[in-house]
This record gives sequence, C-alpha cells and structure tokens, in this order.
Amino acid sequence: MSKEIPYKIYLEEQEMPKAWYNLRADMINKPAPLLNPGTLKPMTAEELSAVFCDELVKQELDNDTRFIEIPEEIRNFYKMYRPSPLVRAYCLEKKLGTPAKIYYKFEGNNTSGSHKLNSAIAQAYYAKKQGLKGVTTETGAGQWGTALSMACSYFDLDCKVFMVKVSYEQKPFRREVMRTYGASVTPSPSMETNVGKKINAEHPGTTGSLGCAISEAVEVAVGTPGYRYVLGSVLNQVLLHQSVIGLEAKAALDKYGEKADIIIGCAGGGSNLGGLIAPFMGEKIQKGTDYRIIAVEPASCPSLTRGKYAYDFCDTGMVCPLAKMYTLGSDFIPAPNHAGGLRYHGMSSVLSQLYDDGLMEATTAKQTEVFQAAETFARVEGILPAPESSHAIKVAIDEALKCKETGEEKTIVFGLTGTGYFDLVAYEKFHDGKMDDYIPTDEELAKYAAKLPKVEL
Amino acid sequence: MSKEIPYKIYLEEQEMPKAWYNLRADMINKPAPLLNPGTLKPMTAEELSAVFCDELVKQELDNDTRFIEIPEEIRNFYKMYRPSPLVRAYCLEKKLGTPAKIYYKFEGNNTSGSHKLNSAIAQAYYAKKQGLKGVTTETGAGQWGTALSMACSYFDLDCKVFMVKVSYEQKPFRREVMRTYGASVTPSPSMETNVGKKINAEHPGTTGSLGCAISEAVEVAVGTPGYRYVLGSVLNQVLLHQSVIGLEAKAALDKYGEKADIIIGCAGGGSNLGGLIAPFMGEKIQKGTDYRIIAVEPASCPSLTRGKYAYDFCDTGMVCPLAKMYTLGSDFIPAPNHAGGLRYHGMSSVLSQLYDDGLMEATTAKQTEVFQAAETFARVEGILPAPESSHAIKVAIDEALKCKETGEEKTIVFGLTGTGYFDLVAYEKFHDGKMDDYIPTDEELAKYAAKLPKVEL
Repeated sequence: MSKEIPYKIYLEEQEMPKAWYNLRADMINKPAPLLNPGTLKPMTAEELSAVFCDELVKQELDNDTRFIEIPEEIRNFYKMYRPSPLVRAYCLEKKLGTPAKIYYKFEGNNTSGSHKLNSAIAQAYYAKKQGLKGVTTETGAGQWGTALSMACSYFDLDCKVFMVKVSYEQKPFRREVMRTYGASVTPSPSMETNVGKKINAEHPGTTGSLGCAISEAVEVAVGTPGYRYVLGSVLNQVLLHQSVIGLEAKAALDKYGEKADIIIGCAGGGSNLGGLIAPFMGEKIQKGTDYRIIAVEPASCPSLTRGKYAYDFCDTGMVCPLAKMYTLGSDFIPAPNHAGGLRYHGMSSVLSQLYDDGLMEATTAKQTEVFQAAETFARVEGILPAPESSHAIKVAIDEALKCKETGEEKTIVFGLTGTGYFDLVAYEKFHDGKMDDYIPTDEELAKYAAKLPKVEL
Repeated sequence: MSKEIPYKIYLEEQEMPKAWYNLRADMINKPAPLLNPGTLKPMTAEELSAVFCDELVKQELDNDTRFIEIPEEIRNFYKMYRPSPLVRAYCLEKKLGTPAKIYYKFEGNNTSGSHKLNSAIAQAYYAKKQGLKGVTTETGAGQWGTALSMACSYFDLDCKVFMVKVSYEQKPFRREVMRTYGASVTPSPSMETNVGKKINAEHPGTTGSLGCAISEAVEVAVGTPGYRYVLGSVLNQVLLHQSVIGLEAKAALDKYGEKADIIIGCAGGGSNLGGLIAPFMGEKIQKGTDYRIIAVEPASCPSLTRGKYAYDFCDTGMVCPLAKMYTLGSDFIPAPNHAGGLRYHGMSSVLSQLYDDGLMEATTAKQTEVFQAAETFARVEGILPAPESSHAIKVAIDEALKCKETGEEKTIVFGLTGTGYFDLVAYEKFHDGKMDDYIPTDEELAKYAAKLPKVEL
C-alpha cells in the first residue's frame, strides 16, 4: 500500500500470465451460440473447422474451462512486446486537477501499433501447429492485417490479406508494413475470387467494403487446401486471447495494492474491451466486487446503446454464421468516422450478453470531442493515441472531472489500445476544423433494424 | 550471473540515472572548442548565450564536471517513456544461428519515435527555467521537430519549427504530429525572415535545405525577445543529455552480469552514438576495458570514414560557429538517402576527437543492404526500425555472423534509435526494387574538401 507507484508498472517476465482467462466459464448466462444460417441450429465443431483451425474451434465453443494455458511459443512471442505497461497518468491527473487516480493499459508499443497482435500470434500459432500452409483475412483500417502479417512472418506461414480497396489506395503505409512482413495484400473486391468478380461486375469502380473483403477471404480459405480464415475481433476465441490485457492490468494493480473503481474501454467488435475487463468482470460476477465497467462507442455507430439484441449476420455478405448480439443490422454502413476499428455493425456475443444482464454500462462519444480528448492526452502524456482508443480517453476524462466536482478519489483504469501514427489524415481534418459529427437518426436505425433476420429458437 | 536474462530488461524507476555523464571530463584529448567565425577565437559564454539558453551554454563549455544532475522535472518527464528497454534479440540470434549474444537499446517507444526526446525535454526545461517565451529550431525528416514540439508542449513553451519545404510537403504526417503538440510549423525557406526572403528571391521555387532552415531559425531566435535557438544533435550538450541511453544500457547489462564486447551505433551528427557509448568509452579510457566501438554511417554521407578532420561551418548558411570535426564540407549535399537523420556533413566534435584518437572505429553501409537488414530484423524481432537505426542493425548482423564462423560468443550491443513509421515511402521503394546505392567518388569529395575554411590556431 505504501509503495510509491511508478509512472509505468511493468510486470516481471515471471509475473506474466501463463494462461488466458475464459470469462465465459464464470458467466451465469452464457453467450448465445453461433447458428448455421441454413439450419438455424448451433454451429458444430465440424462445421466450424472448415473455416477455422481445430484448436480455435475448440476455444470458440468452450464455455466451461476457466483457464486455458498459453503455449510456450506464444508466451515467448509475448515476451518480445509484453508485458505492456500499466501507466499511471500523473500528468493528466495534474492537468485536470482531479483527485481521481487514472491508469491506462497501453497496448501500442509494438510495430502493429495495437492490441490486435495478442490474438494474431495465437491464431497463427494454432494454424502452424495444425500443419497449415497459410491463413486469409480481411482488413479495413489495417491494424489487424498488420498484426496478422507480423504473426505469420514469425511462424513462417503464408498470409493473404484482402484489404478494402479504398484503404489500400489511401493507406499505402499500412500496406507497406504488411509487405515488409511478407504478406500478400490484395485490394478488395479483387478478380481473384468469384464473389470479387461478381461485385466488380455489378458495381464497376467500387472501392469495396469490409463485408466484401470478409467474403473474399473466406472463399479463398475454404477453397484452398491447407488454408483457414482468421478474424481479429468479435469471436469468443479472440476475447479469450485478449484477456492477457486484463490479467496483466489486474496483476499490476494488485502488486501495488490498488483497486479499480471504474474500468473503461472503447468498443468496436469488442476484442479490446472484452480482454481488458475479463478478470474484473469475473470477480464482479463471482464475488460481487464493485466495479463500474463502461463501454464507449462512437455516436456514429452505436450498436450497444441504440442497437437491437438479436441474431444477425456477422458480415454484410451474409456468408458467415449468425451471432446473437447487439446490432445495427449487417448492412448498416456508418457515416465517415475516422475510428476505423469502431465501425462494426455488431458487438461480440460475450459483451452483448453481459450488457444485457446489466453487468456493464455503455455510452457514446462524438468524433470531435474524441479528438479534443486525444489532443489533451497527447500533450500531457506524450503518446499520440489512436482515434479508437481516444473514445476511452474522452470518458475517462469525464469521469475524472466528475471526481473533481465531488472530491472523490476514485481509481479509473482505461484501455489505450493503440497509437495514431496511421490516423494523421484524421488529425489533420480535426486541426483544420473540417471534422463533422454525424449521429444516425432513429428513422435510419429503424430502417436497418427492420431488415434483421427473423430467428426463433 | 546465473540469472536468466529476460527478453527485455527494464530498470526499476529508482535505478534510472539521476545524473548525465559528461564523457568530456574523462577524455584525455578534449574536443576542440567552437570558434567565432569572425575572430577565429573560441566562442565565449557571452557570445553563445545570444543564441542558446544560459544553462545549456554552461553545459556546452564544461569539459570538467563528470556528472551533471538531471533536474527532477526532467527526470519526471523521462519516467513517462523511460527507462527504454534493453532487449535481448533472442529471435534474431536464432535466425542467424550465431553463438553471439545480441542486445539492442530501443529508443523508439515514445510518440516522437526516436531518442531525440531525451535532449529536447532538457533543452525545453532550461529555456522555461530561464523564463523564456519560446524556442526555434529547424527540422528535416522531422524527428527532432516532433520531439521538441512534445517537450515544449509539456513545459508550455512556444515552439517554432522551420521545416525544409520538401519535407513539409512530402511528410504531412510529421507536420501533423507537431501541430497536435501545438507547434507552429513553417516551410523553409519562408517569407518570414530576411534570409528566407533572400533565398526565395534568388532561387524561386526552391524546396529548401537544412542549412537554410537553420539560418531562418537562428535569425528568428536572435531577433525575437524571449526566444532562443535549440539544436538536436552535434553539440556537446546534446551528447551529454543522450548519455542517459548509455547509462541505462550499462546499468541493465551490469544488473545481469553481462559485459559488452562490441558496441555499435549509427552516426549522423552523433547524438545517439555519443549517448550510447558514453559510459563504455569512459571506462575504456579510464580503466582500459576492452570495448570495440563502431560508428556506422551511410556510404552516401561518409564523414568519419572519408572526411577531413578540420574546422568547418556547422551549417550551410555559414552563420553558426566553426567546429572542429570530421567533415565533408558544409556545402556537401548527400545523394538521395532515406536515412534523413544521417545526412549531416559533419560529426560531433566529441566523437571526431575520439575517432581521431583511435578509440573507436567507423564503417559504412549501403542503403539497400541497410534495408535488407531492416527487413530481416523486423520479421523476427517485431519492430519496424527506422532507416537510420538499421545501419547499426546491418553491422550488428555482420559481426554476429563473424562470430558464427569463429564460434566466438561475443556480446554485441547496438542502438536502435527509432521506428520507421514515417519512412514507409523508403520501404516501398525498397520492396519495389527502386532503391539505388550511391557512393560519392573521391573526386567529388575532394572538390568539397578543397572549399573547407582555412583555420590556423
């Protein structure tokens, strides 16, 4: 307790987690299963294994095993960029004049620039272990594609990335990092797949979408011997791997006798938030520990706060299984929003269930206020944050200012998922006053919600 | 000794250096003094203080004080991004199949992306302490400008950066980071200074040069009440601040009972190399410890390996004092070379003297082989290195491969000064096979050497 808290808490290597924590084992209401879109029956392991690696299918379906050992090869890779620091934001506290203690778990200190690497390396490892030749995936903004390229390079695995054409053209730097790691990067829609050819024929000159890129990646994975498809968010397996974030954060707090009061994370598909909150949420469920947990989503893409809790397609192409989640509808296209990682129409089933059970809160933040918070943070804490992460910063600052009013010394922990090095076009717009806040109307949302598939179990 | 060496060695906060190490105090032959270009007499403190902050002038001229305390405010800032990790390159060793142990000190884990912040924060602190309103500087590639912007933002100091026009236009992202930190960034040559107007009139449409940007920054600093000029390399004071790199590296090695055999750093103006080697060099001079120290410069800009040891101007505009250094001549313009930080025509006086005394070696590396080494490194170690830093990687790999041949288990330490996030245009050229190696001919170098000022002391 009396130990002075350093600016950055790094665990020792031997204090790093040796197992991932599977929050589902401690959930009273389990997340709803994925459904086969044809039969509307829960997807079996066999069905899933045509698309995903066997071991990952096992993890996807396992709602019971509390701790799943992290293989030594993955732990060794983690040691190259983990533990990530839990930073005490002394300078931000001072700037705000708040009695609150603010901590952030910084996941940007690796070349992919975000937390995505935590799951990418796990998925690549299991693919290699299964004797596969390569994996396919899609990427929009590029964080996930970069992380997967790094992971595949490490395990000498082919990596084929379908990158949404508009990003491919506008973000050549992201593409170049992937090429440095030996990945093949194809603008989507391409002429290499049936679905790509079809879309190109129907929409000449289209700049692509994430939904289309997913469909191309799945088609290649299923049609190429020795290949599987991998995904960077939403899935149970991804949240499992990302639990390393929360486990480290909690261990670091425990080491200094600190107890979080409020835990805040940005939420797109849910990979970061699900990982960060896992051990705190587990304790809350099991022991009733008083943790306020807040998901922050962009006002332009408010799946938790304004979506429906229903079965929906995971992709716009509707080739993937159905998942029960808070969703805006699989063909909802958010307005231009520079937080590329928060544009997904749905939310992981695990988080959706926890939210529905009242175990966590959700709120939204507008783009310009997010960038304002990002700039405030960057100037005092010396880290240029990703727009996604800055949603969490915004709400952490708000909570800290509430403490200033009430005089409460709360402990706030938020996830700083990545750096903004590849988002400087957005920063430029913000500096030049050319950034808009767009919030969908109720009518718009109702239009998409009306198109949700009708599923009765 | 028997302690297992982790992938990354982080010092505890209380183990971080509390004083910078002034290598000059231990040098037998001191570096030659700066000369007033008019009188050819050593610059006095009074003369220097028109341009630089008083405390920095003191540090610049102090060849005697071995340790200079790091003020608490600076140590607090250092705690936000330091200690930087000393990384054991286990994966690179395995990839090379070498018995050598390879370590690198990674300085890229801060938003400026390089070691430059170590001196920027010190210079900003002393400016603030002196009650100044702001500072001016120039930047080429942008690493130094970014670091200084961050430092000035922290101490609430105006920061005016003259950015070489071609970089200003081609590197809008760097510029945007500086704006995020509140700096004013002006393309140089500008119409805001006499020298800028003159150059614009004489060379309409010029895209600028570092020499011109320096002259503009100095003109504004000297002509604006409450302003001083700051510089990110070459100067004694900068090497002093950068000694924090070497002090941490040595403390981390000592903690695990490791002794470096070979220490390698890239060398442009000398700020990183001078900082990294300081405590090792000091021990070598004082106790005769056997350290091989190697400076690596680009083959396109070989000041140590092919320059003259002579008094020369520090800037192309010839408004700054004369420094005795290994130089190619102040109007030498290196061929296009993507390691923007290694394009300086001269080398810090401290390093020049040490090299002349035979206390360190120097070698060159060609651009394409540097990028090849960068890619090899990125793929196994998971960090995308800056082109500058990759010069050190190249030679570290060469030395490790020599150990493979001889079976020697040498310990190699090199400086990884920064990340390559803002150098992806260069990576793209490399991947596309469009990168050339240019090496100046003897005739070319002789032409510039003939124009060196004639100074007899």
